[in-house]
Amino acid sequence: MRRFAVVGHRAATAGDFSLNDLPGSAGRMDILCRCAAASLFLSHGLRRDAECYLVLCGEPAPPKTVLFRGGEVRSLSPDERSVGGMIKSALAIPCGALFRESAPGIYVRRGGLERLLAEVSIAVLEEDGSDVRAAPSLPEGFLLSDHENFSPEECALIEGLPRFSLGPRSLHADHAIAVLQNELDRRECGWT
Amino acid sequence: MRRFAVVGHRAATAGDFSLNDLPGSAGRMDILCRCAAASLFLSHGLRRDAECYLVLCGEPAPPKTVLFRGGEVRSLSPDERSVGGMIKSALAIPCGALFRESAPGIYVRRGGLERLLAEVSIAVLEEDGSDVRAAPSLPEGFLLSDHENFSPEECALIEGLPRFSLGPRSLHADHAIAVLQNELDRRECGWT
Repeated sequence: MRRFAVVGHRAATAGDFSLNDLPGSAGRMDILCRCAAASLFLSHGLRRDAECYLVLCGEPAPPKTVLFRGGEVRSLSPDERSVGGMIKSALAIPCGALFRESAPGIYVRRGGLERLLAEVSIAVLEEDGSDVRAAPSLPEGFLLSDHENFSPEECALIEGLPRFSLGPRSLHADHAIAVLQNELDRRECGWT
Repeated sequence: MRRFAVVGHRAATAGDFSLNDLPGSAGRMDILCRCAAASLFLSHGLRRDAECYLVLCGEPAPPKTVLFRGGEVRSLSPDERSVGGMIKSALAIPCGALFRESAPGIYVRRGGLERLLAEVSIAVLEEDGSDVRAAPSLPEGFLLSDHENFSPEECALIEGLPRFSLGPRSLHADHAIAVLQNELDRRECGWT
């Protein structure tokens, strides 16, 4: 299983945001939508072995986590508005401590990064990490941040986790996931 | 200079499409929007050395080419709706044989792939190409297709061009550009 987790520092936690303003009033939800798509989509099909956790930390009810399971989703399109609509629907259902399904393969629960780190084995993608191409093996899960850096509280939570870097330039989180998927694909298929 | 060209086989060629329906009535314009963003954006800034050519082949006035020049664009946001708005504005101005600027760094002209190939040195990204990581050097320009394969007419035009593959899985064009940018970044900065 491949797992990608992205912290959306200002991402809305209620389902009343406008799909016409994903970057603004939804708190850069556009980035998270593209991250979910980069986690799940191949050119003609879905990555059934992939999951994407979107950790939403914006108002009015943070934190919540929306989970996309590639093995279960149906009728998902890769454009931002479609993915945003799925997140909006997930945020509109009653949200408790356990993941609850809002559409096939799409789940929501209360809780954020701290809870996720206790459950999923994860490494951090950051500019100062070791080169991902040089790693003898790679972990199952990767954590990224949206357009903001990890907060001091988040930094304390992820201190001591393995850190990997993708290259010399700092990338948008969705582009980083695409690069990482390619590295994982190559390893899985023996392309060295 | 890095150049990325993407053929949008059904992408609208008039500026009257709805930003609320980029995948549908605008002819999978969502893919082209993400391709422009993957060509131009770093995490906190623009790739000033990059250009993106969107070859629009849909109704009502095909073909047209919209060009984004990273060195000149201003006030561009990476979300699909913002990029789509820029394409819509470009398609709304009178369009002639020469590139005409619709906003800083964004241009439009009549003409499609054949004309572009006569001007820009370009290689094709395809599954059957040689491994991009193994290439001693890489060309300045790359051609990709949207969700459809190249047509027989396009295949005739690109026959004989160098072909590169990014890995064992077929990717969305925007994800492919992100992977390619990473390979070019690494080479540029001596990350082997």
